Amino acid sequence: MDIASSKFENVGPFTRAWEWLKALPVKLWAMAVEFANKMKKLGQDDPRKIVHSLKVGVAITLVSLFYYVRPLFDRFGENGIWAVLTVVLVFEFSVGATLGKGLNRMLATLSAGALAVGVDRVATLFDRTGQAIVIGILIFIIVATVTFMRFFPALKARYDYGLSIFIMTFCLVSVSSYGDDEFLEMACERLYTIIIGSFIAIIVCICVCPVWIGETLQNQIANNLEKLGNFLEGFGREYFRLPEEGHSTDDKSFLYGYKSVLTSKDKEETMANLARWELWHYRFGFRHPWNRYLKVGTLTRQCAYKLEDLNSYLKYFEIQTPTEFRREMQEPCIKICSESGKALKELASAIKKIRQSTSVNFHVANLKIAAENLKSLLNTSTFENANLREIIPTAAVGLILIDIVPCTEKIVEAFQELASRARFERMDDRVSPSNDV
Amino acid sequence: MDIASSKFENVGPFTRAWEWLKALPVKLWAMAVEFANKMKKLGQDDPRKIVHSLKVGVAITLVSLFYYVRPLFDRFGENGIWAVLTVVLVFEFSVGATLGKGLNRMLATLSAGALAVGVDRVATLFDRTGQAIVIGILIFIIVATVTFMRFFPALKARYDYGLSIFIMTFCLVSVSSYGDDEFLEMACERLYTIIIGSFIAIIVCICVCPVWIGETLQNQIANNLEKLGNFLEGFGREYFRLPEEGHSTDDKSFLYGYKSVLTSKDKEETMANLARWELWHYRFGFRHPWNRYLKVGTLTRQCAYKLEDLNSYLKYFEIQTPTEFRREMQEPCIKICSESGKALKELASAIKKIRQSTSVNFHVANLKIAAENLKSLLNTSTFENANLREIIPTAAVGLILIDIVPCTEKIVEAFQELASRARFERMDDRVSPSNDV
Repeated sequence: MDIASSKFENVGPFTRAWEWLKALPVKLWAMAVEFANKMKKLGQDDPRKIVHSLKVGVAITLVSLFYYVRPLFDRFGENGIWAVLTVVLVFEFSVGATLGKGLNRMLATLSAGALAVGVDRVATLFDRTGQAIVIGILIFIIVATVTFMRFFPALKARYDYGLSIFIMTFCLVSVSSYGDDEFLEMACERLYTIIIGSFIAIIVCICVCPVWIGETLQNQIANNLEKLGNFLEGFGREYFRLPEEGHSTDDKSFLYGYKSVLTSKDKEETMANLARWELWHYRFGFRHPWNRYLKVGTLTRQCAYKLEDLNSYLKYFEIQTPTEFRREMQEPCIKICSESGKALKELASAIKKIRQSTSVNFHVANLKIAAENLKSLLNTSTFENANLREIIPTAAVGLILIDIVPCTEKIVEAFQELASRARFERMDDRVSPSNDV
Repeated sequence: MDIASSKFENVGPFTRAWEWLKALPVKLWAMAVEFANKMKKLGQDDPRKIVHSLKVGVAITLVSLFYYVRPLFDRFGENGIWAVLTVVLVFEFSVGATLGKGLNRMLATLSAGALAVGVDRVATLFDRTGQAIVIGILIFIIVATVTFMRFFPALKARYDYGLSIFIMTFCLVSVSSYGDDEFLEMACERLYTIIIGSFIAIIVCICVCPVWIGETLQNQIANNLEKLGNFLEGFGREYFRLPEEGHSTDDKSFLYGYKSVLTSKDKEETMANLARWELWHYRFGFRHPWNRYLKVGTLTRQCAYKLEDLNSYLKYFEIQTPTEFRREMQEPCIKICSESGKALKELASAIKKIRQSTSVNFHVANLKIAAENLKSLLNTSTFENANLREIIPTAAVGLILIDIVPCTEKIVEAFQELASRARFERMDDRVSPSNDV
């Protein structure tokens, strides 16, 4: 680049522009290739995205062609176009989002249409000017109130789209009612086409390779637990390696895996809100306790903050901790790391397989014993003439590990509550179903 | 409630249902009152939300009445309704969001309309069946491609609404072009009315009590820094209080203020994406370095993880740390807490006032000295016969505080880069403007 730019220095602006123009096709081509590569990578990372694009393409093409060749929409005439619009606007990546948007759109159109017809009936009691004033005042009051309602967190989470469609439909019907006696018929036709469009979107979304956001949330919660488990196991091996054991050649990627857990809150909440719409999934049903997943997620995040903390002690590893001290600490610390790691990974696998876990209690019991050992070790040790700076990092790691024990217990409790509320399969039932009979 | 339910136990289901029905109005009234109270609280917490609702009400009422009494929309006939729809769908809380949606909608409608007209011209080369096939294939390809493009993080962040409107308009125009020679005129009229609607929304949003999302982001970043500063100052006073100084009666709320910083990532990113649309704000302009704010936000969050860690040591406060040791630690630790707290709060106030800071370097210099003192203290201390369990918590707090020093320095660096890129006002310029002349 330096050579190229120095070449330009002695030439006029036109030559420079010409050179730039000549280089343009190459640049554009490079950009196109880069874009195609990014697309390819995106598709490879999550092939469901490609499938989704094809699904949307098929659904919209079908609805458009139905409208285009008019066998289905003859009855609705021009209003048939609303079916096409509805499919475009309602079709989302996950079943939960599509169902949520479809139901929101249908209910909002229905209720706003009914309200607008009522307003119109009131307005016809007045003369021409009075009619405009009454409609104006009512539109103002209703639009301002509904807009304000959109700020409620509870409504915003699940009904935001519906409220915006409510405002839209209400204005559309009230305003077009003026001087048009057929507006009621038109409003009904639009309602039917919107219902048809919503159902087409929902049915295609559910029947062709559906993406259930509830499953995605479940997997995300399980994966986060697994990342924490991996970190803890890896940290134990890494930090408490004695000098004579030499350097590790392991992959260190586990040390960074948990980082994404730190900022997962908003994504999990959005997913839980969408998952509530997925009533018809055979696994989840009507009252699936999505809040319990969020609870596990929150506790996982609190544990991740502690790991962030542990991670910062890895840099003190080079400070030669007196081997004698580290040797004493090694056993209970590695025990805590490996048992809590195993417990978290066991929970992750239980959530993925939707079954209760019995072995996790075993790990928690081991964990408590190891924590007690570590506590009494720290309580009884006195190191004469030891340099504080050398001892402290390892001892502080010990304290954090002691803190991780109640963290893990809380996660286990939250999991067990989730498992009982969501009726996870019992392991012993499966092994010996005759016991219950 | 227990008395009431026991009263029901001896009566039949009809009596029970009747009692329930009689109680219904009271319950509904209680719900309505609760709802009204929540609304009132929401409005008091952020009066801008009430103002926004009134703005939307006024804008939509005006557009609706214009359409209703037809002085302005006579030219557009039925298509005038698209202006009303556009105002409803484009009007958002912040100027950035409204501008983003408005520009997205206008550009997407224009480009999709043009593409659809082109597709129609190609399709007319074929006979009736061929036309349907060609349009079907082209709709499928374009819809699937654009749907896939919506997954690109860079496009999703800023152009998601535009891409969805692109698909909608493209389908609408291609499909309605069939057998209708006036479709081009209709498409143009809709484009005009959408442009009119977008401009009405944008102008009302900017002219009446505008909410600039860029300012909101700036304040959020500054408030987060302030929360961290408050925590550090409060923690220093709280943790290193010697027994003879007695218990504190201060408000402890500062200890929880920083918690919201831990999960602020997604909100900040959304705000920065919207703020990029606010080109016309006198303070920000075209190339305001929003990424630099995000950088400061990320480093603030990393510092907040360390505070979460410090917070967990407050519970060890009850363990009687040997006063002698704590007395030695007290001075450098309190110095680090107060100086880093002051530095962060100074940055917060500088960001709020959009000016550079000179005094922050003074605090950072003090901070470094205090950290060196603390390090040498930890390096040289040997406590014979000291119980590790009693010393470790305070020593670990010292280690974390040493870690907070580079954290603070990084935040200061990120701030200085932000201040120079965003051309924050120089303090010395303001005090003595004659120096530069």
